[in-house]
Amino acid sequence: MMTDGPSGLRKQADTSDALGLNKSVEAVSFPVSALTASSFDRALLTQLGKHLGIAAKANDVAVLLGPGINMKRSPLAGRNFEYFSEDPLVAGELGSAYVNGVQSENVGVSLKHFAANNRENQRFTVSSDMDERTLREIYLSAFENVVKNAHPATLMCSYNSINGSLNSENKWLLTKILRDEWDFQGLVMSDWGAVADHVRAIKAGLDLEMPGKGKSSINEIVDAVESGMLAESELDKAARRVLNLIHTYSKDSNDAVNYQKEEQHEFARKTAEQSMILLKNEDQVLPLKSTDTVGVVGELAAKPRYQGGGSSHVNAFKVTTPLSVVQQINPDYQYAQGYTLKGTDTKESLSDEAIELAKNVNKVIVFAGLPEEDESEGFDKVRIDLPENQNELIKKLSEVNPNIVVVLQNGSAVTMPWIKNVKGVLETYLAGEAVGEATWNILNGVVNPSGKLAESFPLSIKDTPTYGTFDVNEKHEKYREGLYVGYRYYDMKQIPVLFPFGYGLSYTTFKYAELKIKELEEQQVEVRFKITNTGNQAGQEIAQIYVRNRASYIEKPFKELRGFTKVELNTGETKEVAVTLSRRAFSWYNEQTSSWQVDNGNYEILIGKSSADIELQSSLTLNWSTNDKPIIDRDTYFANIIARKDLAKALAESGLDKLMGQLQPSAENAQLLENIPLRSAVMLGASSEQVDKFIKLANQ
Amino acid sequence: MMTDGPSGLRKQADTSDALGLNKSVEAVSFPVSALTASSFDRALLTQLGKHLGIAAKANDVAVLLGPGINMKRSPLAGRNFEYFSEDPLVAGELGSAYVNGVQSENVGVSLKHFAANNRENQRFTVSSDMDERTLREIYLSAFENVVKNAHPATLMCSYNSINGSLNSENKWLLTKILRDEWDFQGLVMSDWGAVADHVRAIKAGLDLEMPGKGKSSINEIVDAVESGMLAESELDKAARRVLNLIHTYSKDSNDAVNYQKEEQHEFARKTAEQSMILLKNEDQVLPLKSTDTVGVVGELAAKPRYQGGGSSHVNAFKVTTPLSVVQQINPDYQYAQGYTLKGTDTKESLSDEAIELAKNVNKVIVFAGLPEEDESEGFDKVRIDLPENQNELIKKLSEVNPNIVVVLQNGSAVTMPWIKNVKGVLETYLAGEAVGEATWNILNGVVNPSGKLAESFPLSIKDTPTYGTFDVNEKHEKYREGLYVGYRYYDMKQIPVLFPFGYGLSYTTFKYAELKIKELEEQQVEVRFKITNTGNQAGQEIAQIYVRNRASYIEKPFKELRGFTKVELNTGETKEVAVTLSRRAFSWYNEQTSSWQVDNGNYEILIGKSSADIELQSSLTLNWSTNDKPIIDRDTYFANIIARKDLAKALAESGLDKLMGQLQPSAENAQLLENIPLRSAVMLGASSEQVDKFIKLANQ
Repeated sequence: MMTDGPSGLRKQADTSDALGLNKSVEAVSFPVSALTASSFDRALLTQLGKHLGIAAKANDVAVLLGPGINMKRSPLAGRNFEYFSEDPLVAGELGSAYVNGVQSENVGVSLKHFAANNRENQRFTVSSDMDERTLREIYLSAFENVVKNAHPATLMCSYNSINGSLNSENKWLLTKILRDEWDFQGLVMSDWGAVADHVRAIKAGLDLEMPGKGKSSINEIVDAVESGMLAESELDKAARRVLNLIHTYSKDSNDAVNYQKEEQHEFARKTAEQSMILLKNEDQVLPLKSTDTVGVVGELAAKPRYQGGGSSHVNAFKVTTPLSVVQQINPDYQYAQGYTLKGTDTKESLSDEAIELAKNVNKVIVFAGLPEEDESEGFDKVRIDLPENQNELIKKLSEVNPNIVVVLQNGSAVTMPWIKNVKGVLETYLAGEAVGEATWNILNGVVNPSGKLAESFPLSIKDTPTYGTFDVNEKHEKYREGLYVGYRYYDMKQIPVLFPFGYGLSYTTFKYAELKIKELEEQQVEVRFKITNTGNQAGQEIAQIYVRNRASYIEKPFKELRGFTKVELNTGETKEVAVTLSRRAFSWYNEQTSSWQVDNGNYEILIGKSSADIELQSSLTLNWSTNDKPIIDRDTYFANIIARKDLAKALAESGLDKLMGQLQPSAENAQLLENIPLRSAVMLGASSEQVDKFIKLANQ
Repeated sequence: MMTDGPSGLRKQADTSDALGLNKSVEAVSFPVSALTASSFDRALLTQLGKHLGIAAKANDVAVLLGPGINMKRSPLAGRNFEYFSEDPLVAGELGSAYVNGVQSENVGVSLKHFAANNRENQRFTVSSDMDERTLREIYLSAFENVVKNAHPATLMCSYNSINGSLNSENKWLLTKILRDEWDFQGLVMSDWGAVADHVRAIKAGLDLEMPGKGKSSINEIVDAVESGMLAESELDKAARRVLNLIHTYSKDSNDAVNYQKEEQHEFARKTAEQSMILLKNEDQVLPLKSTDTVGVVGELAAKPRYQGGGSSHVNAFKVTTPLSVVQQINPDYQYAQGYTLKGTDTKESLSDEAIELAKNVNKVIVFAGLPEEDESEGFDKVRIDLPENQNELIKKLSEVNPNIVVVLQNGSAVTMPWIKNVKGVLETYLAGEAVGEATWNILNGVVNPSGKLAESFPLSIKDTPTYGTFDVNEKHEKYREGLYVGYRYYDMKQIPVLFPFGYGLSYTTFKYAELKIKELEEQQVEVRFKITNTGNQAGQEIAQIYVRNRASYIEKPFKELRGFTKVELNTGETKEVAVTLSRRAFSWYNEQTSSWQVDNGNYEILIGKSSADIELQSSLTLNWSTNDKPIIDRDTYFANIIARKDLAKALAESGLDKLMGQLQPSAENAQLLENIPLRSAVMLGASSEQVDKFIKLANQ
């Protein structure tokens, strides 16, 4: 038995159907990955995984179909809410933690959607077209991390193609990379309906077609074996992996499970509290004080969006809405609906009522967000703006009350045209069934917020890396931005954003100091620094370690996240943080040599509160590559020859020095000369024999 | 005898060397292509070609090594000044006109640099990496135009690789595309030093290695023929093309040549006058009036930059500097050097002198621009800003005088941080030896300016399409921006520019009216509209015809230039303009089918004064494709099935209608359904047999 449910079990009780339209058993709805990622907390994700594993086991579910760890390439992608981040390290680390949690309960996972599945429109047939370096560094990296560090029981092959080759039939992807390079030992299943040709899929390394097509698919395989098209041994491999999965994760009735939904609900609350992101807090408008008079506005307070649509949709155990919670704990707070989620037009009566309320309180909490039909699995969004009636209402409220706090419920980045008019913004994404409790615990200061954004929030959709290229081609999605996804793009293009990747506030403040960098044995680097809580309450801080490669003469992002850590600090407390960076943190994928390469030279280590707030900075020089004297060949440029003093003798003996002597006095000619390779020295008057002689001498 | 010289003959008198370091014979230096392109005047370019042909013939030169028609992909590219435009239509049309002119004098050209040669750094070995559609639509398109319309005698193969395959050894490029598809009948020579392996080059379709490597290269070929590596017939083909070139363009001593350098100088002046671009003219600060007291500032007035560095550098016949001309025609104008071209620091004494001058006149003409060492063949630029001392001076002058006019001398786009502080800007690029006369004829109103920019001027280098990717990789230049070069990028990303492509002012004004669009026979479209001179002097207007494809579900620029025309109008005069657009104007290159495709549907026709000022607009629906009922197959999406009413019966008969009936009532599920192809209907509960039955019925 396998079921959906990366954010809560989704086991259909009676008849099951592939689209999951029938009702599933009650289960706790945890926050979606967009929110849990914002915790940057590996231990929390492992706990979450354990709870999901327990729920699964208690329901005789052997494999949980999650987590999804695809990159958030465009904020328009319909399934972003189910994914962790725009950064492969965050998705890979938190994905690994989650998988380790689930599987520690002897329930398997299905890591999905493998790979480069970053849009929903035409998702069954669209090809993700990109260079291999981008694929390896951005789109495969998180999968590689989880496969190597958490050994998922299964992997789910995605619908799309990569560079024209359908993933479910792509042997390079499913066998060469996944099994031969990464040593994946589990089973590969298809996403639902992703198999076009079952025989070719088996040959490529796909073990299980989901859902089964019944007789027609079985006949295909039998015919293929009988005709010799498919070797029985290939079929056996797939069958053995299916049997192995059944054997490993089959129900063990002696295994007692302590499945407590109330306890899981409390954990759902805690997860949300540890993840929500305080984006703005001018004049310390938050936390709310006991002396504040507060108005609560917005239909989303009464009918919160707390989970996404599609295969991750859960039949929630117990939803605590923000309105029901506030009525219990702050019964004097008044409420106005403000707008309707049906349609985007302003209803004057609702709007007026909210404005009246706002006039009579000293703070207003507005619940705003995207309606469910705007974001779901199965189709992409066409805008990232809130409905016009909500944006209008917030502006109007800000005209009558200076202390507006917006609480956002949405699956992925939204724009905030009213950002300058409000004092506070709390991003809660889709926070799971305990949304009400968690939100008020943050607003009231019971919990100090500590989440940071795992994705950039752009000022406008037109500033995003894929603007104009995302979803515009029916059959081919061109990954034109290449490596430059999320902050890698905004950094490079120097495009301002609304809120940068890695950003989030706390009710306390932190100071960073004393960065120390040390090269360890075995091509590792240790980064140490101190963080002090300089404010007046306990809190948690997420510190980010970025590396800037200054060594390689290749295209590269300005900086890349290579480590992160979350520390808890009491008032005045200082802790030293140590993060070890491996060789991979300094590597790039060389398509020509098909290998991860580290170049000798200078690397900057940047310690940030966010991708835009670098607090500490230092650099180190690495000499890990033994290839320090490159071979001189006919393609070697004079620039590289002139730079090497040790070649002076070879230049003189071959007679090429005279040629250079003629050109160097003029600055213009000198620059031109440097840009000429040996093989073209003939155009300067050198003979082929001189060039050959020099190459021979230079390499001795 | 072949010589350099796309903007003037460059024949070395005595010893010739490949780099052209030795002095060449005196010849008229015409404006560079960056300026002549701004004329948008085919007839003018043909006249220019004729003059160059005459100069060549008079000097016993058989082949002129030009023009260069590569795309201006980045304003940092070192050789932009030699190229026409960021738009392939402009480069192709004006390149054709130029080639027709040269060759009408029985002198051959060498169209260069074929192809995708868009950076100078590591130009011998760097690979231009891009998808084929981008290559075909942007980087090959101008070459295709000139080859088909002007039949150049020779083509020069560029240094670089395309997608890893060295151009000089690329049979797909040099034979399949160039000869088989475009029917090129001429000779292909290499750029100087571009051949790495002569035998492979001949096999690929390269006929002539330049410069010869002497014995070593000949031996290579002889050995290859003797060993059977190279078929004698392949060598014969190349030899025959060389002999054919010699035969066609060899000196005919009976052919009298009327070569008058004075006349050519006058034509150089006229060309510059017809091309210079008036970028700003607030309060009609220009033309200068006889009552104006005028100060002239800037070392570039005395030592103008009028040509580029590298192989196009001419030993000019007679340079008229702006200073010498003004001293003759406006002897009362005073001059101050203002800054020095050596270095970028402000020299207080020079600066102060200019400020004093500015205080005592009512208008100041500042000559500014890039020093020669900033831009040349052979290396790329690292910035597009004027030297700091010039920018500072202009700002200081504007503080003491409200009427500043900047005259720019530069090879390619520059930034203008002082744009809001000056009243006038005249872009003269590198205007050839008659720079002084032409500039003053515009400034004094003897000639009404009529040039428009053939490239976008960005606000900052960081706004450009290739920022962060250009020149950052030693071996591979990733054309990440794809089709989105120049205005195609700024349009799509909605990035504001300093001056848009196609922009330029006149001393008079024009009004556009009465756009009419008519479909002609044989898949052509006629576009007609009227232009009226609504100002008070005669002038010329360049009108641009853009097409916006709304028919194709592919990635595409917002609009693309598909026609242009230049008309001369007296005060109050109206002319109707007619431009015929061919099938190609509505086509895109389909990599899957390797063909130019036109899709049925709606196309907008946009008539612009520039790419940013659309004056007239209309649309038409084309039904040129016969493929109007696409085949239904297993990859067809339900969205496309639902859209076709004629398939209702097939849906009902196969039973798939029931399935759709279940899903459509919910908006969310309906959207999801539309994004599922037939082959995956099984996940909705359909059987493979139902799908097969539907496909059969649907295609009947």
